[in-house]
Amino acid sequence: MSVKSYIETNKGRFLEELFGLMRIPSISALEEHKPDMLACAQRLANLLMASGATGARITPTAGNPIVYAERLISAEAPTVLVYGHYDVMPAEPLELWNTDPFEPTIHDGRIWGRGADDDKGQGMTQIKGFETALAEGILGCNVKFLFEGEEEIGSTNLEAYCEANKDLLKADVILVSDTSMVSKEVPSLTTGLRGLAYWEVEVTGPNRDLHSGHFGGAVANPINVMCQLLASLVDSNGRITIPGFYDDVEEVSPEEREMIARIPFDEAKYKAAIGVDALFGEKGYSTLERNSCRPSFDICGIWGGYTGEGSKTVLPSKAYAKVSTRLVPHQDHGKISRLFEKHMRRVAPPYVKVKVTPSHGGQGYVCPIDMPAYKAAEEAMRIAFGQRPLAVRRGGSIPIIAAFERILGIKSVLMGFGLEQNAIHSPNESCELDYFFKGIEAVAEFYHLYSPKP
Amino acid sequence: MSVKSYIETNKGRFLEELFGLMRIPSISALEEHKPDMLACAQRLANLLMASGATGARITPTAGNPIVYAERLISAEAPTVLVYGHYDVMPAEPLELWNTDPFEPTIHDGRIWGRGADDDKGQGMTQIKGFETALAEGILGCNVKFLFEGEEEIGSTNLEAYCEANKDLLKADVILVSDTSMVSKEVPSLTTGLRGLAYWEVEVTGPNRDLHSGHFGGAVANPINVMCQLLASLVDSNGRITIPGFYDDVEEVSPEEREMIARIPFDEAKYKAAIGVDALFGEKGYSTLERNSCRPSFDICGIWGGYTGEGSKTVLPSKAYAKVSTRLVPHQDHGKISRLFEKHMRRVAPPYVKVKVTPSHGGQGYVCPIDMPAYKAAEEAMRIAFGQRPLAVRRGGSIPIIAAFERILGIKSVLMGFGLEQNAIHSPNESCELDYFFKGIEAVAEFYHLYSPKP
Repeated sequence: MSVKSYIETNKGRFLEELFGLMRIPSISALEEHKPDMLACAQRLANLLMASGATGARITPTAGNPIVYAERLISAEAPTVLVYGHYDVMPAEPLELWNTDPFEPTIHDGRIWGRGADDDKGQGMTQIKGFETALAEGILGCNVKFLFEGEEEIGSTNLEAYCEANKDLLKADVILVSDTSMVSKEVPSLTTGLRGLAYWEVEVTGPNRDLHSGHFGGAVANPINVMCQLLASLVDSNGRITIPGFYDDVEEVSPEEREMIARIPFDEAKYKAAIGVDALFGEKGYSTLERNSCRPSFDICGIWGGYTGEGSKTVLPSKAYAKVSTRLVPHQDHGKISRLFEKHMRRVAPPYVKVKVTPSHGGQGYVCPIDMPAYKAAEEAMRIAFGQRPLAVRRGGSIPIIAAFERILGIKSVLMGFGLEQNAIHSPNESCELDYFFKGIEAVAEFYHLYSPKP
Repeated sequence: MSVKSYIETNKGRFLEELFGLMRIPSISALEEHKPDMLACAQRLANLLMASGATGARITPTAGNPIVYAERLISAEAPTVLVYGHYDVMPAEPLELWNTDPFEPTIHDGRIWGRGADDDKGQGMTQIKGFETALAEGILGCNVKFLFEGEEEIGSTNLEAYCEANKDLLKADVILVSDTSMVSKEVPSLTTGLRGLAYWEVEVTGPNRDLHSGHFGGAVANPINVMCQLLASLVDSNGRITIPGFYDDVEEVSPEEREMIARIPFDEAKYKAAIGVDALFGEKGYSTLERNSCRPSFDICGIWGGYTGEGSKTVLPSKAYAKVSTRLVPHQDHGKISRLFEKHMRRVAPPYVKVKVTPSHGGQGYVCPIDMPAYKAAEEAMRIAFGQRPLAVRRGGSIPIIAAFERILGIKSVLMGFGLEQNAIHSPNESCELDYFFKGIEAVAEFYHLYSPKP
C-alpha cells in the first residue's frame, strides 16, 4: 500500500480518534477542567501506544501532566523529538459558536470544534503520520513524542521538565506542527521567530500633580518628557536609535530576501484589512521583511495625568509606558535590555527621574534551511501539497522554541499546517478535512525521508 | 478719626460680621446646600445695606443668586465695580481640620475656617473698607458691588447676568479681592493672568488592536506616532513649534522684567518644594517669567494601549492625549486653537488619522499699570502694608476677568490680600488677623485715592 492509500483506508478511524480528543474540554486556563486535563493526557498516551509508540508515560508536574512516548528503531538512525500540546483555549464567547465547541462535527468539508487545528488536529497529523510511516514500513528515524498541557498558559512547567529529562529528550531535531502556512495556495515552513524585550518606563517630574497655570512653562512636564524620550527611540527612517541595538542583528541574506519576495502579498488588501491608508517601517525593507526578519519598537501602553471626562489643567507628577522591541536572531534579549536601560539613563534629562523596569524577554529563533531535517520537511510538503513550500519567517515569538534550543541544544523544524481561516483561539475553530489528511501525508513522508544518509 | 482708628474701634464688629457669613456653609458644589446659598446671599445683601450701600438686590439665576448693591455719590466721580463671591469650596476631607470649618475661631493670631480668605474674608475687606471710607467721609468714587455664588463651580451664570445688565454694571474699573500676594514680606498686585487653550487629540492607526509580533515594524503604532507628534511641539529651547504661535505674544518690557527680577525668589527652595533637581523652560527667560508672562505647552493627560498589570504585546488601534497651552495677553485662544489644528493636520503622517477636538479656552488678561485705578491701588497698599507693592503677573487663568473685559469692556485691578499659607481650597483655611485689617485699610485708602482728578 502507499502512504496515500493507507491514509484513504483509515480516514474514518483517524477522524474518530481526533474527535475523541476534541470531545475532552482540556482547557488549561480554567481550574474546573483539571480532571479533563488528566483524561486528555491519558487518552493521548493510549493513542500513542495504539499508533505504534512504546514506553508511554504521563509525568505529573506542578500544573498539567506531560505525555511522553517513543519508537526507537536504530542507534544509527536520526532521532526526531515531536512537540505538541493537548490543552486548548477557552471556547468563550460561546454564543458565537455555530456548533458545540466540544462536539466536533463535519460540514462544508471542514472539521469544526475547539482544537480542530490548535493543537489537537495538528498534533494528530504527527501521530497518524507516524502510524502511517510505521505501517507502510518506511519509518526512517527514531521518534520521541512530547506533549504538554500548558501551552496556552505559557508552558509553565515544560522548561523544568526539559532540564530534568535532557537524556530522555536527546534528539537531532524537534518537529513541531503548531504553526500556520502563508495561505492555502502557498504552503510554507516557518523558519524564524522574533524575540522580545519588554519594559515598563516611569518618568517622575514634580513630587505631586501641579497646577499647570502656576507651574506650566517653568517645570518640566513628565508626560512631555516621556513623549520626547520615546519619540527619540525611532528615527524618521524607522531605525531604532538605541546605540548598539543593531550590532548583533543577522542581516537577511539575498537568498532569503529573494524567497520573501516570492511570497504572494497584496499590500492593498493588507492595508484594507487593518484599515490604514499607508504603512510605515524601516527604510530599505519590504513589509514582509519588516514584520518578520527586522526588529521593531512598539509602545504597547501609555498613561499619565488626567484621563477622565472633560478637561483638567494639571501638570502631572508621573507618566508611564509599557514598551517592547521584537528582536531577530542573534540579538540577545538580556543584552538589548541592558542597552536600553543604559541609553535611557544617558538621555534622561536632569529635570525628571526615569526608571526602567525590565518585564520579560525571549530570544528569537531561526531554522537553518540547509539542515537535513529542514530539507526532509520541505520535500515531504512538496509531495503532500504539490509544490515546494516557501521558507517564511514569522514576526511573533514562541518562547518554548528558543527554550528548547537553549536547554536541549536542539533546533526545531516548524512544519505547521494551519491556515488563517482556521480561526484558532476564536469561535468556530475549524480545519479543512483535506488539509488534515495532507498533513498526515506530509508527516509520514517526513519520517520516510528523514533517515540515515545512504 | 483716621482710617486706622476707625478700623481699630470697629474690629470686634467686623470680625463678628465676617463670622456670621462664614458660619453659613455656602458650598456651591453640593446640591444639599442650596438653602445655605440663599441664606448667605441674603445675609450679604443685609451686610451691604448696613455698611452704607443702597439698592441691594438679590437676582435669582439658573444656579445661585447674584447680589448687587451700590453707593453712587456723584456723576463726576469715577465708578468702581467690586467683584467677589460668597460661595466656598467643600470642606472635605473633614478629618484633616483642627477646628469645625464652619465655626470660625481665632487662635495663633489667625482666623480659622472655610472662607476665612477665599472669598468671604477678602470680600469683607471690600465691604468694610467701603464702610470705613464712607464713615470717615473720604469716599471719592461711586461703588457698585457684585457678588456671585458660583465662582468655585465655574461662574456658570455670571456671564449671562453681565450681558443682561450692562448698564447697571457700567463702571470705570473692576476691583477684585480674590488673589494672593507674593509673600507676607512682599505685598503685590496681580497685573496679569494667562489664557488657555485645551484640546483632546486622538490618533488612530489600525482599525483594531494588533498582535505586535505579527504586525510590529510594518504598521505604524499610534502611540509611537502620538509621542512623535507631541514631542515635536516643543523644541530643545522650550519654544513651542506651532507656526504662528508667537505672532501675537506681547513681549515682556524691560521695565516689567526688571520688576519681576526684584521679586524675591529662591530657586533652590522652589525646586525642593516640588521635588525636582532641575527646572526646564523657555530659553532666555527666568522661572518667574516662564510661569507668568510666557506661554507654555503641557500634556495634561495621555492614554492608550495596555495599561494593566504585567505585559501585553499589543500594537494598539488608538492613542489619546489631553493637551493645553497657557497663553499670554494678545494671544487669542480661538486663533491659537485654529493654528494648532492646522499644524496637527499638516504634520499628521499618512499612516494614521489624527483628530483634534478643542475642549475649552480663555483669554489672558493684563492690567495696565498706568491706569489711575492701578495707581490708586498701589498707593493704598503702600499705605496699609508699608511698602510699594510689586506688579506681578500670575500663570493661572481667571476666566471671568477676561469675560468682564470682553462683555463689559472694563479692566480689573486685582488687589488681593491672600497668602499661600492661608491654604485656600484645603483643610484649615485661615487668614492672619492683622492682614484682614490691613486689607480693610488698603481698600478704604483706595476708595479715598480713586477720586476725580483735582
